[in-house]
Amino acid sequence: MSRGDLSREANGLEPRLSRASVGRLSLYLRCLESYAREGSATVSSGQLGDVLGVTDAQVRKDLACLGNLGQPGIGYPTAELIAAIRGALGIDRDWAVALVGVGNLARALLRYRGFAQQGFRIVALFDVDPAKVGQRLDGLTISGVDQMPAVIAATGAELGLLTVPMEAAQQVADALVAAGIRGILNFAPAVLRLPSHVSLVSVDLAVQLEQLAFLVQVSGNYSGPEPTTR
Amino acid sequence: MSRGDLSREANGLEPRLSRASVGRLSLYLRCLESYAREGSATVSSGQLGDVLGVTDAQVRKDLACLGNLGQPGIGYPTAELIAAIRGALGIDRDWAVALVGVGNLARALLRYRGFAQQGFRIVALFDVDPAKVGQRLDGLTISGVDQMPAVIAATGAELGLLTVPMEAAQQVADALVAAGIRGILNFAPAVLRLPSHVSLVSVDLAVQLEQLAFLVQVSGNYSGPEPTTR
Repeated sequence: MSRGDLSREANGLEPRLSRASVGRLSLYLRCLESYAREGSATVSSGQLGDVLGVTDAQVRKDLACLGNLGQPGIGYPTAELIAAIRGALGIDRDWAVALVGVGNLARALLRYRGFAQQGFRIVALFDVDPAKVGQRLDGLTISGVDQMPAVIAATGAELGLLTVPMEAAQQVADALVAAGIRGILNFAPAVLRLPSHVSLVSVDLAVQLEQLAFLVQVSGNYSGPEPTTR
Repeated sequence: MSRGDLSREANGLEPRLSRASVGRLSLYLRCLESYAREGSATVSSGQLGDVLGVTDAQVRKDLACLGNLGQPGIGYPTAELIAAIRGALGIDRDWAVALVGVGNLARALLRYRGFAQQGFRIVALFDVDPAKVGQRLDGLTISGVDQMPAVIAATGAELGLLTVPMEAAQQVADALVAAGIRGILNFAPAVLRLPSHVSLVSVDLAVQLEQLAFLVQVSGNYSGPEPTTR
């Protein structure tokens, strides 16, 4: 396969690629960007595997879906592999993001450098609290939920970050969907029901701590490294 | 198996239980606690599966490791299943938690009700910034990293929450390990290297957004629901 086929190959990614594989692509990307900053033109599957704690065979398997980029004895061309992974993940473009629920977590996310580095721009803030509506934070004005359709249309936000209390989560998610959002990253400890055309990733922070407690209890680590776990 | 065997059975859990299964146990627990508050004495595998978006066969398979609690046509006894899951996850006890890096994310985590509800108590705060050391927040005094061994011994903290910038993450993680911490929940976008006796769960918030972007791009959802994903 020629390298010109890369984007087609990337678009042909199995849509039901496991969460673990997609998560590892993100982590390979972090490593590759670090190697690129250090000036490495090529990176081996062994180097990538070492950092993530997976075998080089697993690395080659994960990266095979991006085309035949790796060369035996040479490795992967760093810049091209970065571009291929960004294409596969859908972050070879910017994403405009709306954030709902302006509390401490929202403030942390607004200043989280990792989002902007990967092309995620927070372009709109919403809160249900009338006392917050109209206030400015990091150059953005907080809007009310009733203004959501207009503000989301005007800003072009496609993804929503949900940092509201559990009780408000479903109602606000419904409002985001009605306003045309295509995917929601949910931090509220609530199970959301969304129409099938809207994607959902939930981050339940207590679940993460429970997973850690489980691991400590069994003095273990997960056998197959998952996206965000060694 | 008699019900008295439950804790033994729970302790006999396969240590390499997949992250997906452990995550689902946490989510079943959320549902069960909600049913318990509503007064339901029994819950069916179908009810649990509906909420998580998995088949009732998957629910029964996940819960089989807890012993023969389910009865055909009746369901699972809510209170006993809650106790069994808490035992299996290692949250049938309290965990004292030390938090390192007192920024916006830390403030959000300090006030995150879900932690206390599941028995995670933040008992110590640390920061590398001398200007923050000595300040009080939510009833706790912020200590310097040099005080870590003494404070962690005094508070009995076993788990560490890492909310420091990427650059500081490895150094602070090493300090936590040296002070006797058994597990770390890492929010810094950095791949940490820890000794094998210390467990690690990493939450890279940009990875979560990248996963969402991938899903939106392919208009998909994960085929097998993972712990924190529909």
